[in-house]
Parts: sequence; C-alpha cells; structure tokens
Amino acid sequence: MALDTVSRRLITLALEEDLGPGDVTAQLLPAEHRGHATVLARTSLVLAGTAAFSEVFRQVDPESVVEWTHADGAPVEAGTTVGSVRGLSRSLLIAERTALNLLQRLCGVATMSAKAAKAVQGTKARVVDTRKTTPGMRALEKAAVRAGGATNHRIGLFDGVLIKDNHVRAAGGVANAIRAAKKTAHHLLKIECEVTTLVELQEALAEGADVVLLDNMDVPTMKRAVEIAAGRIPLEASGGVTLEKLPAIAATGVDFISMGALTHSAPSADIALEWV
Amino acid sequence: MALDTVSRRLITLALEEDLGPGDVTAQLLPAEHRGHATVLARTSLVLAGTAAFSEVFRQVDPESVVEWTHADGAPVEAGTTVGSVRGLSRSLLIAERTALNLLQRLCGVATMSAKAAKAVQGTKARVVDTRKTTPGMRALEKAAVRAGGATNHRIGLFDGVLIKDNHVRAAGGVANAIRAAKKTAHHLLKIECEVTTLVELQEALAEGADVVLLDNMDVPTMKRAVEIAAGRIPLEASGGVTLEKLPAIAATGVDFISMGALTHSAPSADIALEWV
Amino acid sequence: MALDTVSRRLITLALEEDLGPGDVTAQLLPAEHRGHATVLARTSLVLAGTAAFSEVFRQVDPESVVEWTHADGAPVEAGTTVGSVRGLSRSLLIAERTALNLLQRLCGVATMSAKAAKAVQGTKARVVDTRKTTPGMRALEKAAVRAGGATNHRIGLFDGVLIKDNHVRAAGGVANAIRAAKKTAHHLLKIECEVTTLVELQEALAEGADVVLLDNMDVPTMKRAVEIAAGRIPLEASGGVTLEKLPAIAATGVDFISMGALTHSAPSADIALEWV
Amino acid sequence: MALDTVSRRLITLALEEDLGPGDVTAQLLPAEHRGHATVLARTSLVLAGTAAFSEVFRQVDPESVVEWTHADGAPVEAGTTVGSVRGLSRSLLIAERTALNLLQRLCGVATMSAKAAKAVQGTKARVVDTRKTTPGMRALEKAAVRAGGATNHRIGLFDGVLIKDNHVRAAGGVANAIRAAKKTAHHLLKIECEVTTLVELQEALAEGADVVLLDNMDVPTMKRAVEIAAGRIPLEASGGVTLEKLPAIAATGVDFISMGALTHSAPSADIALEWV
Amino acid sequence: MALDTVSRRLITLALEEDLGPGDVTAQLLPAEHRGHATVLARTSLVLAGTAAFSEVFRQVDPESVVEWTHADGAPVEAGTTVGSVRGLSRSLLIAERTALNLLQRLCGVATMSAKAAKAVQGTKARVVDTRKTTPGMRALEKAAVRAGGATNHRIGLFDGVLIKDNHVRAAGGVANAIRAAKKTAHHLLKIECEVTTLVELQEALAEGADVVLLDNMDVPTMKRAVEIAAGRIPLEASGGVTLEKLPAIAATGVDFISMGALTHSAPSADIALEWV
Amino acid sequence: MALDTVSRRLITLALEEDLGPGDVTAQLLPAEHRGHATVLARTSLVLAGTAAFSEVFRQVDPESVVEWTHADGAPVEAGTTVGSVRGLSRSLLIAERTALNLLQRLCGVATMSAKAAKAVQGTKARVVDTRKTTPGMRALEKAAVRAGGATNHRIGLFDGVLIKDNHVRAAGGVANAIRAAKKTAHHLLKIECEVTTLVELQEALAEGADVVLLDNMDVPTMKRAVEIAAGRIPLEASGGVTLEKLPAIAATGVDFISMGALTHSAPSADIALEWV
Repeated sequence: MALDTVSRRLITLALEEDLGPGDVTAQLLPAEHRGHATVLARTSLVLAGTAAFSEVFRQVDPESVVEWTHADGAPVEAGTTVGSVRGLSRSLLIAERTALNLLQRLCGVATMSAKAAKAVQGTKARVVDTRKTTPGMRALEKAAVRAGGATNHRIGLFDGVLIKDNHVRAAGGVANAIRAAKKTAHHLLKIECEVTTLVELQEALAEGADVVLLDNMDVPTMKRAVEIAAGRIPLEASGGVTLEKLPAIAATGVDFISMGALTHSAPSADIALEWV
Repeated sequence: MALDTVSRRLITLALEEDLGPGDVTAQLLPAEHRGHATVLARTSLVLAGTAAFSEVFRQVDPESVVEWTHADGAPVEAGTTVGSVRGLSRSLLIAERTALNLLQRLCGVATMSAKAAKAVQGTKARVVDTRKTTPGMRALEKAAVRAGGATNHRIGLFDGVLIKDNHVRAAGGVANAIRAAKKTAHHLLKIECEVTTLVELQEALAEGADVVLLDNMDVPTMKRAVEIAAGRIPLEASGGVTLEKLPAIAATGVDFISMGALTHSAPSADIALEWV
Repeated sequence: MALDTVSRRLITLALEEDLGPGDVTAQLLPAEHRGHATVLARTSLVLAGTAAFSEVFRQVDPESVVEWTHADGAPVEAGTTVGSVRGLSRSLLIAERTALNLLQRLCGVATMSAKAAKAVQGTKARVVDTRKTTPGMRALEKAAVRAGGATNHRIGLFDGVLIKDNHVRAAGGVANAIRAAKKTAHHLLKIECEVTTLVELQEALAEGADVVLLDNMDVPTMKRAVEIAAGRIPLEASGGVTLEKLPAIAATGVDFISMGALTHSAPSADIALEWV
Repeated sequence: MALDTVSRRLITLALEEDLGPGDVTAQLLPAEHRGHATVLARTSLVLAGTAAFSEVFRQVDPESVVEWTHADGAPVEAGTTVGSVRGLSRSLLIAERTALNLLQRLCGVATMSAKAAKAVQGTKARVVDTRKTTPGMRALEKAAVRAGGATNHRIGLFDGVLIKDNHVRAAGGVANAIRAAKKTAHHLLKIECEVTTLVELQEALAEGADVVLLDNMDVPTMKRAVEIAAGRIPLEASGGVTLEKLPAIAATGVDFISMGALTHSAPSADIALEWV
Repeated sequence: MALDTVSRRLITLALEEDLGPGDVTAQLLPAEHRGHATVLARTSLVLAGTAAFSEVFRQVDPESVVEWTHADGAPVEAGTTVGSVRGLSRSLLIAERTALNLLQRLCGVATMSAKAAKAVQGTKARVVDTRKTTPGMRALEKAAVRAGGATNHRIGLFDGVLIKDNHVRAAGGVANAIRAAKKTAHHLLKIECEVTTLVELQEALAEGADVVLLDNMDVPTMKRAVEIAAGRIPLEASGGVTLEKLPAIAATGVDFISMGALTHSAPSADIALEWV
Repeated sequence: MALDTVSRRLITLALEEDLGPGDVTAQLLPAEHRGHATVLARTSLVLAGTAAFSEVFRQVDPESVVEWTHADGAPVEAGTTVGSVRGLSRSLLIAERTALNLLQRLCGVATMSAKAAKAVQGTKARVVDTRKTTPGMRALEKAAVRAGGATNHRIGLFDGVLIKDNHVRAAGGVANAIRAAKKTAHHLLKIECEVTTLVELQEALAEGADVVLLDNMDVPTMKRAVEIAAGRIPLEASGGVTLEKLPAIAATGVDFISMGALTHSAPSADIALEWV
C-alpha cells in the first residue's frame, strides 16, 4: 500500500540532507555496476517499516527492486534475512543509510510494542501510543505500533478531543470543559477528559465524558477509579508507564494504557545490508 | 542564527502531521486567552535544540515569544528552568508537543555526546558522529553533537570521500579505490578509506589516503595500526562503539572515534512545559 | 485567527492562475498611487470568509490594510458596508477579483446555512454539512456553515467512521461492518452507520453503532426510526434535503439533517468593492 | 491531454483536505478488494471535467482505470452512463467524493454555457466567460465553458489589457488610459476599454481601442453603441447578464456578451457513481 | 516593487545550490561580526536587477539592508558606486556570490539592450527581446531589457499567438493557419504570423494577420515587404540580428526587430562588492 | 543518469515561465499530430547538457522520446546531427525553446572548457571552474565543465573551506584564519587560503594550509610562489583568467587555474531543432 504524503515527504527530506548534490564516493563505481544485498536482522525483532524502506530505494532510483520475505508484524530471530535489494550499485549505496535509519527505528518501535502487548496479555487492557513520536514519522511509527500488536490512540490534535489540565483550568473545571467540548466537537468525535483525582473522575462521569484519562495515578487509586467507573466508559491510564509497570497497571482493570516510551524510547533494532 | 532549510521543512512536516486541519480541543479555550509556561529540565542534561524549539512556536504563531535563560551546550541540573514561552494559549498548546518532541531528542543527543567527550578527555582522540541520524534531523542532531562537546564527521555523501568495503571490492582493492578517488574528487575534499586489516592499512598509507578508518578492529590491532601510521595521517576507529569502550579505544592513540550511538541510541531527555 | 495551510495554499493557487506573470493593465496606474475601497453587500446576507478575503490582499501585498466593521456570522442588510481595503492601487486591483470570488461564495454558504438553521428552529434537529464542498475550500466552507448557524459534520475521511452501503456490502452486512469498525478505529472516533431499512437500523442498534444515518427515507419511515431508536443514539437524516423539506424532516425527531446543498448549491452573494 | 499545473495542484489540495492522514472507514474493506462503478448522469447535462475526474483517481492510485464513453462537450440525457472506474475498492472510495465534486460543478458550467450559447444562436454574438470563477478552477471552468459551446475571454490579468473605470479615473480619462496602454503593452496584446457612456465610446474609438466593453448599458443604448462603432471594432456587452436577457442583448448587434453567471451561478449537475 | 513568484523561487534555488547545508568558511567569522560593502561597477554599464540582488540578501537574512543610489535603467560609468549592503558579515558573505551572479548578467542584458536601442534611434523601429532567455530568468531578463531601453515581446507561449513555420506546415499554409488561430485565440490576443517569402506576406495580409514576422529576410526583401504592407499592420524583422546589422534593418521601415542576442549573448557586466 | 533535484526544479521553473497556462499557438495543430525533429549543431562544439535537454521533453510529456547519437563530452563539427526527438507535435513545440536554451548554454560552457583544457595541455596545470555560474544551473554547468575536459572546484560554500581576504581580515591575518578553520572544519575537508603576497604565502605554508590560492598575482610572482611552495601543497592561480593568458599561467608550474569565464562568459553554442 502506498505511503501517506507526509511520510513520502519525510523520506525526500532525509535523502536531501544525506545526498545533497551527489555522492562523491559512489562515483568510484562504474555507472552500470549492479549490486545485490540482503536485509539482515542482527538481533531478534518485530519487522516494521518495510514500505518506508522500499520507498527510499524507489525515490533514489525507480529501477531498484526491493523484495521482502517477511511482512510488517512478523517476529524474526537474530540472523534472519527478511528481504533483499537489487539495482545499480550507485543507487543502492545512496539509499542504504537512509533506508536503514528508518527501518532500524521502526523495527525498534514494533519490537517494543510487541513486548508491551505481551505484558498485558490476558487482561482486557490495550497498550496505546501517544503523540510523543519522532517529528515527521507519526504515521510510520503508528503503523509500527500496530505491527507490534499494540494499539493506536488518536493520530493528532484533530481526530479526537482530549481535554488536559490546561483546558480544564482555562474552562473552570472538568464539568465546564466537557460541556464546552460537547458543543464544539462534531458528532463523530468522542471526548476524553484527563482527571487527576477521583473527585474529578466523578465529575467527568456525571458530565458524560466518553473516555477518562487517569493522569499519573498510583495503582490503588486506579483500581478505585475502575470500581467507580464500573464499566460505564473506558478508562485510560497514563504517565510514566514502563514495560515493568504494565502488568500491575493492566491488573487494575483499566481499558487503555498509553505509553510514550513506545515511540520516544524504543531502542533501534540492529539491521544491516549484507552485500552479495 | 536561523535554521537551515531542511530543518525548517521538517518542523513544518511535524506540525502538519500533528495539527492536521486544526486542534479540536484547543477550541475550548477563549481565542484571546494568553498563557505562559516555563521549560523545565526534569533530569540533568546538556541543552541543545533551542532554535528548533523556538521555530516550532514561530511557525505556529509568529506572535509567540520564546526566551532562553540557557544556551545550547549548557549543562543543567534536574529541576532547572531553561526558558519560557508566552503567547495565545491556543497557539502554545498546538506547538507544545512538537516542540518538546524535538527538544527532548536533541538534548538527549547532546547529553550523550557530553558523556562521550568526557570519556576520552585527556587523550588526543575526538568522538565524531555518523550518518546514523534521525531522518530529517541530520543538521539538528549534528548541532546537538557539537553542543555536547563531541565533533562532527562529514555531513553526508557529498562533502568528503569515504571509501567503504563495497567501493574497495568494486574497485579491485584499496589501492585502486584510492587512486580512482583522487581522480574524481575535487581538490578540497579529503579521501578516507576503510580498512579491515593491517595489510590494507599499509596499502592505504602507500597510496596516499588522507585518513584511514579502522573497521571493527580490536584494541590491540588498533594499537598496532597507530604504530604503523606513526602520525603520518589521522586514524578513525569505528564499529560498535559504546560509552564503556571509549576509554580503551582512545588509549590506543587513534585520532577519531566514530559512534553511531550518539544519534541512534541517545535516550530522550525528560523536559516539560510547566504552565504558570 | 490565521487560516489553515490548505486555505492559504488555495489562495496562492487562485492568485497564481489570475495574476500569472503580472497584471498588464494595473501598470497603467502610477506605481505609488494609493486607493481605498469599501466592501459593500448588495443583497442581504450573512457574512463569512472575511479571513480568506483579508489573506488574499495580504498575499498580494503585506502593506495592504483590510478592516472589517462586521464579523463572520453577522447578518447584514442589502446596502451595508461591511469593511474596507486600503493600499497601493495596483495591489488592490490585483487582489480584488480573487478576494471577491471567495467572499461571494462563502457568504452564499453562510446565508443558506442561516436559512437552514432557521427552518429547523424550535426542534432538536441540527442541520449539518457534508463532504460535497468546493475542491480546496473544505475548511473555508465549513467555517461559513458555522457562521450561518448550522453545524459541521466530520471534516473528511479521517476524523470519524461513516459506514456506507459499499462498506456494508463488502463487509457482509451492517452488523459485520460495525464489528469490524470497532476493531480498527481508535477509541476517540465514533462509528456512524448508514441504513436504508428499519431492519438494518435494528441491526445497527443491536451492534452498538454510535450514530445511525437514515439514507433517503421518507418522513413516515424516519418517524418510525426515531421511535425505534428511542433516544439511545443520535439519528441523522440524509438524502436530497432542501430548505423546503427541512421542517418536516426536523419534525420527525431526528438529531441531525445533513444537507449537501449548503455547500454545493448555495447561490453566490452579491458583494462589490466600491472605490472611494 | 494532460491537465495544467494549477489544476493538478488543486486536485492535490482537494484530496489532502478530504483524505488527511487516511480513510478510517475504507479500512473496513479488504486491502485487495476490487470494485467497479459507472458514472451516471442523473439529469440531462453537457459533459465536462472528465480529465479532472480521471486525474483524481490517478493521484489516489495510478492503478485505477477510468474510461469514458462520452467526451467533454457531449450533451447527454438523464440516466446516461458516461464512463466507468475500476480498481482497488479502497482507492475508488477515497477518490469518489472529490472526483464527483469536481465533475458536478464542471458539468454544471458546461450545461449553463450550452444554454447561453443556444440563447444567442442565429446572431453574431458570442457569450464569453469572466474572471468570476471558482478559486483554483480557472482553467477547468474555462474548458467547461468551451465544452458547452460558449467562448473564453482572457485567462487572467496577464493576457489582455482590460481598462476599467478605476484605471480610467486614475489615468485621467479614457483617451489617456488607452494611450498609456499602447505604450506599456507588448505588440501581441489587444487593448479593451470599458465605457459607461456613448461619449466615452466615441473617445475610445477615436483613440484606437481594439475592443470596447459597454458597461451596464440598457438595450437601446447598446444598439446606439453598435451603430456608432459601425463594425470598426468589436463591442462587448457586460453587467448583470442572465440567460433571460441574452436574446435581447444579442439582438443589439454586439460581438461579445460576458456573463459571470456561467461560472459563479451555474447549478451543480447531479452525477453519481453507481457501484456494480 | 516585489519580485514575481518565479524569480523568487529561482533565487531560492540558486541559494540552495550554493549554500547547501551551510557555509563552512563563514563560520570563521564571529557570529555577531557585522560588515558593510559597496556595490561597484567596474566597467560602464546600464543598471538592472537591483530587486533580484536585494532579494538574495533578504532571503539569506531579512535583517540585511541593501540600499541603492542608482535605479534600474541608470547608465553608470566605470568606477561608480551604485549601492551598498550592510548586515551580519556571515550573511553578507553567503549572499554575495549569488547576488553578483544575478546582477552581472542582468546589467549585461540591460547594457546590450541600451546599445541596441541606440542603434535604431531616429527610426520608428523598436528592438524587442525573444524567448531565448536564461532558464528561470525570463521575468528578470525582460525587466533588464526594458531598463536598457529596448522593448518586450510576448512573455511566453500563452500571451500572444505566434505562428511559426511548423504551425504553417501542419495547418496547410499561412491562410489556413491564421484562420484557425482566429477561431481559437480569445479576443484580446493578436495573431502574428511568420513568413519567409513575400507571397506568404501577401497571404497573411489578405487573411488579416495582426502582425507579420519576416523570417531571415535580407534587407532589400524587407524593404519590399514594408512597401507591400504599406503600414496596414506592423512588421517584425527576425533572424540572426546583431548590433552591427540593426541600423540597416531599422532603415527598411520595419516596426520591430527581435534580437535573441539581447539575452543569450549579452556579456556579463563586471561588478564587485567592495568591503569597507 | 538522473538529474539532481535542483536541476529538475530549475527545468520546472523554466517551463512554468514559458508555458504559463498553455501554448495558445500549439493549439492550431491537431491534438494527435506527431512530429519528429533532429538536433543539429550549427557550429562546431563540445556536447553537454543532453540529460537536461531530455528532461525538458520528459517533463512536458513523458511519451516524448529523445535519442542521442553522441554523448556529453563528444566534440562535433558544424552540421552534425547529435540526436532527435519524437512525439506529439504540440508537446515538442512546447518543450523546444526551453530545451534549446539549456543545451545552447551548456554546450557553450563545454566548448569553452575544452579550449581551456587544450590551452594548458602538456603542463601539470588543470583549469577549474568557480562559483560564478548561472543561478540554478550550478550542477548542470559543472557537468558541462567536466564534459569539456576541465576540472571542478568545490560545488559551493559547504564542501571545502576557501578562506578569502574578508575572512583573513576578520580573523586577524592568514595564520589566525587557518588555525580557526582547522578547528571548525570536519576532518574530510581541506583548507584553501587566498594570499595576495608571497609573505602571506609563507604564512599559509607555515600554518599548514592544504591549498593556497594566489589572488591576482602577475606571472613572475606566481613563478616565485611555485618555487617557494616547492611542491609541498598545490597552488591555485586566480583572477581575470582568459583563454589567452592560460598558457603563460600554466607555465609557472601552478597546479590549478580557476577561471570564472568558463561559466559566466562562454558564448552560447548555436544549435537548432530541424523538423523532419
């Protein structure tokens, strides 16, 4: 499936900053020299970002051929060959670094998402991403989160109302803020409201919020919140979530656990092109 | 100093993916409501990325005012306020996430670069970055590396000849590759050649390479390489470099140590906007 | 308030197609000649599009000054002066036609929206717009709909799930489609499903749709649908809605009435620049 | 024939505002699901805009196939199938609304143009369009005017001198303005001058205008103007022209009748995709 | 007066290719170091391109100040200071080369145009430019032609019909081509037809061409053409025109002499920045 | 080989300024009319710019076919056919002028470069280009310089340090400037320093400049400089270099001679499309 516009433009930028007016070393290879390399996972990982990787080679040279033996979402062991590239050697060398920079980060996100999804298995909780993504890579990283088995939150500021403490303060309380949101949001958007106390939770429930975000609550308080909500609306836990804390949070009975670390702190996966 | 074109366009992309057609929550605040927030370092860090942070606010709303009490390169303790933003609350809320996403990554890079620079203090070695940067953030991350006290390698494929194993193989050996590079590169570019053995090092020295990169050599071999080069040209150590390994590598007497982790594995710094 | 990116780019396109490499007639005026004109509503209308009108003059010449005595949403009588422009005469002449082309269409949309809102007054129904907008003017026309007192539906394909007959057919029925949507949509998006029969309505209710769209139903059937839904979820009437039909549809008790004519068939308002 | 650059960019904008980061409903269909739909004229109309319609599908997905059984300019009865689209169902659903929004407006313009052309049949007058076009659609609407059998005026401010009242006033009279225009315009551009009285017409004739525009004159005055011009140069009638007034104006013997309503007030044609 | 869009974009391109990711030498100067330089004409020339020169400095750094003591069109002696620049030294050094590259070419064009205008003084002939301009500099070079005292032909393919031999051949002769052009061109465009023989000239006159271009005729034939046309329409001489041939061609009585050399062969003027 | 981004965008600009909203004359040819023309060198020249020429036709109409019988760098006699174009006649006519404007300039540069290369044959000197290129054509003109047999200097401000008099003055002398450059430039960039006296040359040698540029020295002084440098580093002669002066300068023993005239004063080659 084709990439979205922003992702394609990010790749154009990335090539522009790396290639500039031309590769002064690739000129050492004969213009017609052709190469072939495999894409090798050096550590175990969950694959993601194949479309972005392919797009880099396509933008550099539409004659390049990228083939995948595994698809996004596939868990692979260290040492697995997941795909290959073929084409003019100069083109491959120009694309290589940018393509790997993308793939390594996206596989990193998918791998961490898989760990997070596993950590809540057996509970009803789903781990969701946040807006703490790499600038320009929102869509790519969200796809990687899905590839890893975690779940997407809203994409950005435009496709879901998320009332935070500043909005609450400016509106004069949780109830006022939710009431205002119901007037301005169109009828296909839900309204999620952040609360920091159980009193605010009550207020949000009374006012008819669609979802409530429990901000930085400790586990016992979250449990209490789940009892109060009693399944009327979904609850989202948020704040400093790590892989280690996930099982305990999930055990409280919350519906969603948002975790910025999925995208801002996932270690890059180690992937290389092996020239044949 | 103004940002370069690519960085400005990356910020435009990042805002576009986050803001889309508009912030449906910010509309809850009165249009004329003004806000003020401070930029707080929650952990100790080296500051970097202030220009990018400011540019985000400027692109969202040129009337916003961002002021800094510390400059790029300043080491700050946890709990330090490093700057502030003022303006229409809607504008500040729209810019906040994208600005922090950038700042946290760039401070992360600067902080790791400072650790790396410290690890080689007292030796003649300088730690340099690589092309393993975040797509679209090459210039910003290179500036963060400098802010942290480490050193930049070439920017991209265009401003320095770096002959790697594939070029060597295609050219038929180190000597042939260097000879070819001398013919094609203009007279202000140096020629660096990657070698994997001491024999290749000898060949590169004989052929007049300007710099030699020692690829994935162990410390004793690097020491031997330094003896062989005997100061005639600079040597660069490369391959799997970590903060832990830096002192031993630096002690071999190499001139440069390139370290992809500076940019691909620096943990994000924890920074927040505190609303006043 | 600043315009969104797409609207600004549309204005750039509109100026480009009209101005091309330059105005060969404006050159007859001395370069320093300054002018002043008022914006005159020649028929009664509801004002909308002032920001777009101002943006045209700003793009042509940032020194031009546009001032408004009335704001978007204001109903004005024929013969009312609603604003004025001042600046270099050449700049004003270049901007005039493009600015008026926008303003006339947007006031037309606001005026029709006001009539629609009035036609359902006293009922709980709200008239909402559709995606049948002028290409490139989605955001501007949606703002004009609000200025007129009607209500916005989702902006586009991305901020709300609207399951139509094709999706139903491909998914194998209303229930299947809704079930699939609940799995793929993030937790801040509601799911609206189009139904053509009361049986499908029952199915949608049973499956937990958030909103149901009644497609091309006659008034008695709509009434029956309202009884069946019994306030559990909002209902939207759709299909061939005209100003004349609005009162009867609203009387059925539906919550929303979507009306493509608000944007695809609103007659342009008659507005002129009067040179002083 | 390929579309011009501005039209292609308008289509890109229109898709961007509608699709944003992705169609959250189309995801319900299997990625490989293919569809087929016919383009059905629900009312009688003159076809126009087929290239723009096709371009929308091409931009969404180059694999989509659009075929036409009728060409621009063809008059078709209600119920006629004029073309068809085939491709991935997701792609078709994404393109559908934007493509129809364009086609409906352009067929509307062509249909009205055909009525206007018919209204002056048997006279020497030709109905011409104006610059009162939809922003961004100048070229597309001008092509639709031709498809309907009416005639194009200049494209914009750059390809013909049209001296209006403001230019006349600033220049100090009709004669001065024409004299100035002859000095500044290049030798392949004609000079048309707007006059509001027969005295001004005499002045324009004396000064050698290439064309004269009769601004808002009543029919008897126009007749008198035709007698005065006596065929020496073409005359253009302008101001508040409707389909109803066309025969009487044409009967005065003028050469051109410009009619803003061709583009600013043509009702959208009713066209639908019928899924097979 | 602001530059047109294409010229501004050309300047952006020119800066991009020269500056790339940054000036590695300008960094030697302290960031706050300010400079001042004068613009010195080293040879006698006619000034042109001042707006483009200023725009380069503005794009590099809006704080830079460019002032002119002479205006476009001014003839200046060798050694004359025509303007000055002030600002941050780094910014001035970055802008210098691109600004001079533009100014030198444009002054070259203006200077040659002045010579051409002088060569036909006392005759009714005007020297006009062609489409043989530097790619991306059409508008700038046409302004330079005017600054030098020569005259502009049409801007491009869109604002004037110029029937050349290929069109004539494809249409089946001069008469057919002119007749077709009258049908397709709008009523403010004139029709110029190229002829290579006096027979074709007669044909063009008979068919009502607005202007005739005499292609590569020798002087006696041109004289004969002038007699045949007898002032009914303007004649344009074209083909291999040099400054030396101008007087003889002008003496034939033609109205226009088009000269590609004005833009494709004008020697660059010698202009320098002198640092104070 | 594909063109770089800037060159492709320049060609887009050039077509935009020439074609605008459409070719009003090409419309005289039937839409399906196909043409064929050969590319004819009317004077002897060295070919360059074929990729740019082809790109123009490709951008206008991807169905056009351009074929070359000679490659860049080939010296051809007057009267040689070097290639051909085929395609829709309208497309060919639209592309013709822009393509020739590029080709003529680039062949001009290659032809002059060949003369320059020949003028220094038998010496060790190489003639190099400068940054005095046509705005937007840097990459194309540098390729033409190579095609002609001369050599490229750095591409722009970013890929080589070139310390000029202003930098020297601001830094407080040659030695200070070189020392500062060694600190700021990355380790693959060489440092060239401009000197105006032999004393400064000594200073540059002592400080370890990689290359020295002899600014506007007379031939005897250059000879003395060569003796002083004694082969330790390369020397570049610069300032007012003409074809006539080349042999004498080369005879001094300098390594490089930079010559702005290669790009700013190369006469356009005379090339035409001959329609078959």
